[in-house]
This record gives sequence, structure tokens and C-alpha cells, in this order.
Amino acid sequence: MADQHRPDTNRGLYEGLVSTRAIRRYRDDDVPEPDLNAILFAATRAPSGHNRQPFRFVVVRRTPETVEVRRLLTGAFRQAWAGSREDPPADDTSRRARMARTMSHFVDHVGDAPVIVFACLRSRGRPNDLFDGASVFPACQNLLLAARSLGYGGVMSTWHLPVVDELARLLGLPDEVDVVATIPIGRPVGGHGPVRRLPLGDLVYENSWGNPAPWAVDLPGTRYTGG
Amino acid sequence: MADQHRPDTNRGLYEGLVSTRAIRRYRDDDVPEPDLNAILFAATRAPSGHNRQPFRFVVVRRTPETVEVRRLLTGAFRQAWAGSREDPPADDTSRRARMARTMSHFVDHVGDAPVIVFACLRSRGRPNDLFDGASVFPACQNLLLAARSLGYGGVMSTWHLPVVDELARLLGLPDEVDVVATIPIGRPVGGHGPVRRLPLGDLVYENSWGNPAPWAVDLPGTRYTGG
Repeated sequence: MADQHRPDTNRGLYEGLVSTRAIRRYRDDDVPEPDLNAILFAATRAPSGHNRQPFRFVVVRRTPETVEVRRLLTGAFRQAWAGSREDPPADDTSRRARMARTMSHFVDHVGDAPVIVFACLRSRGRPNDLFDGASVFPACQNLLLAARSLGYGGVMSTWHLPVVDELARLLGLPDEVDVVATIPIGRPVGGHGPVRRLPLGDLVYENSWGNPAPWAVDLPGTRYTGG
Repeated sequence: MADQHRPDTNRGLYEGLVSTRAIRRYRDDDVPEPDLNAILFAATRAPSGHNRQPFRFVVVRRTPETVEVRRLLTGAFRQAWAGSREDPPADDTSRRARMARTMSHFVDHVGDAPVIVFACLRSRGRPNDLFDGASVFPACQNLLLAARSLGYGGVMSTWHLPVVDELARLLGLPDEVDVVATIPIGRPVGGHGPVRRLPLGDLVYENSWGNPAPWAVDLPGTRYTGG
């Protein structure tokens, strides 16, 4: 990367962007309210079409009144993962086995996460389409990055969708509002693992499709998807 | 915000998230390739559903072969803004007048931006829907934040949509790929202005819709939309 010492650069921001990854195991610690405030504030600074800010966030904490929501969510996540569930033997320490164990733990305990944020979208009186996502998913990404900046981790999921009507009823959503993402948050168990992606040359072209960008090279230490 | 001095916090990341805003006027400077590389690398570290990474980026620079693409884009953006275009007198220094001048300049010159990134999505063989946006718009937000971290600015737009078929032809996109966002990038003319949003209490609820989150308060210095 070019000179990181220019006065208008922000190395912490860049490092955060390239090292934030999905976190699916949370310590039991609650998230203090000042941190929740900071996380939600940063989420809502994200851009949206015409700055209309159609995103809304319902923040569910572990209180007696949210038991039903959290139970509903756990059931839906378990169901979503059921077809892919494996039970690798405990002595299998391969990446695949570790991932399988993490996913099983995640779906069994998602309702116990210290905080669950439901990202909602006010519809514009027509079926939501792809482009409406440009006005809510940047805010979800800001939320995950802000959590990371304060030592938390989370993951964005749409596995609530099979129960979205029941969820909307429990959350008391108006008719014109949809839950578009479920984002559990908490302090990570263990460290943040590596971010794994496809090689940059598979994802970036210059001037036209399929034309390699000679400058697009993975940065040192990159880890790859699969393999 | 809670203790910023914990070892696992990243103040630069947080500051970047809450201060990045749309930038629509660019200095003429080209973006050096190491910076382009870093920006695109960070974009592609964003999460996507099942980590499938259906996003692709076509990076258009100011070369002779991209003249047609850039001319097409300028025409589309001018058309998109035509109905809202105003010509406030030069001595009108109100925020509204300044914004009107910025927008006119933006649509007239978008094709001259040092770099124009077209965010593309590989479709899954069915019409794209809202949830496909969860696998491309976080990457667009990472791209804008990474640009900011290196001293650049940009804005995400969908004003290419009326000419999307012609654009796809010029960029040589396969049938199953759509351009979902246009992101011009360059060094800002002038400073980064304030981020303006709705009051946090209008955007965040606790446990159920409409239930105020007592901890959700705007941070000091917040600037608001409208008014």
C-alpha cells in the first residue's frame, strides 16, 4: 500500500476493514450500554439512497420479555443448518470439523447471544428489490465494523426468514417494515481467525470484464477460501 | 463511548466509520495503483452469504478505451438529476444552494472521476432480490471506507440503471452479471463535511418496535438531516 504516513490516512480504519470477520461464538459478558450506543450510532452513519435512512434497528437484549423472540430465532437457525449439520469426532481438528462444531454451537445458542440486532427496512410501498439493499446493508456492515472496533464480534444472517412473520409479530413491527438481517453480537470466544477470500484477481477487473488488473494483487499474509 | 483504552479497541476504525460521508467533487489527481489495490483488497474482505463472494468489481480508469463508458455514465447521471436540477445564484450560500451546485457539478463530471468502480453481482439464475444485496453492498461500503482510510472519497449511486444494458455491453459483462452500483472515487475537493442523519432515537428501538432505547443518544457534535 502507498505511503501510510500521509497525514490524511487512517491506518486503524484500514486494518479494521481487512481483518474483521464473522464471529459466531460469544462470551457470556453483557454489552455495556455505552458500547451499544456507540455501535448503533456508527451503524446509522452509513449512507443510504438520497440519505432517506429507511433502516431501523431493534436491539434485543437478554430480558424476560425477549424469551420468545430468542427461542423462535434459535429454532429457525437450527432448522436452517439442520441439512448441513455434521457431528465430527472430537479428535478431528481439521478446519472443516472445527467449522462444523462452530456452526452447530452457533445455531444452538444464537438466542443466548448477549445482544441480537434485527436490521429492519421500511418498505416504499412496493416489493423490496435488490437496490433497496443499498440502503440497509451498508449500515449492517458499519454495525459489524463498529462492534469490532470496540472488541466485539458478530455475524449477519438471514436465517430468520422462514419465521419472519412470527418474528415481526413478536417484535411488534408495522406492516410496512421487514426484518432483513439478524446480527448477534458479543465478545468473541478465542481470537479473530483469518479472513479467507478468493484471490483478488478473480474478483477485480480493469476497464472491462475479464481484463486482468495488473495492480490487483493479494496483500502479504492473505488466506484463501477453500483448499 | 466506553473505555477507548482497552487493548482490543481500534479508535481509528471507529472514527472512520462515524466520519465517512459521500464525496462528489474530486481533484484531478489519478489514484496510484498501490492505493487502488489496497482499496479493492479491502472491499473484497467484506462478508457475503455463505462466503460465496458473488461480487465482482470492474475498475474503470481514464484511458482512451473507456471514453464511451464514461460518456454514457455522464449522460445517465445528468438525466437522473435533470428533474431536480436548480441553478441557484452564485451569491446564495445556503446549504441548499451549495448542495444544488455540488450535485450539478457531480452529474456533469462523473465520467471524469479519476476512478469509477462498477460493483457487479453474479446472479444465481433467478431474479435478484433484496437479500442478494447482503452479498454485495457490504463490499461497496468497505470500498468507500477503505478509500477514506487512504485520503480519498467517493459515493455509491444507482443512477446508471436507466442505461444498464448499454453499460453492460460496453463493459463486456456476461449475461448472468449485473452492475448494481456505480462508485466514483478521487481525492476530495475541500474537506469532508459533517455526516448528517436522523436523531438516533428515531432509528433504534429496544426489544420491540417503538420502544425507546434509553441508552441510544446522539454522540456529541452530531449534525442532523434537514432543518
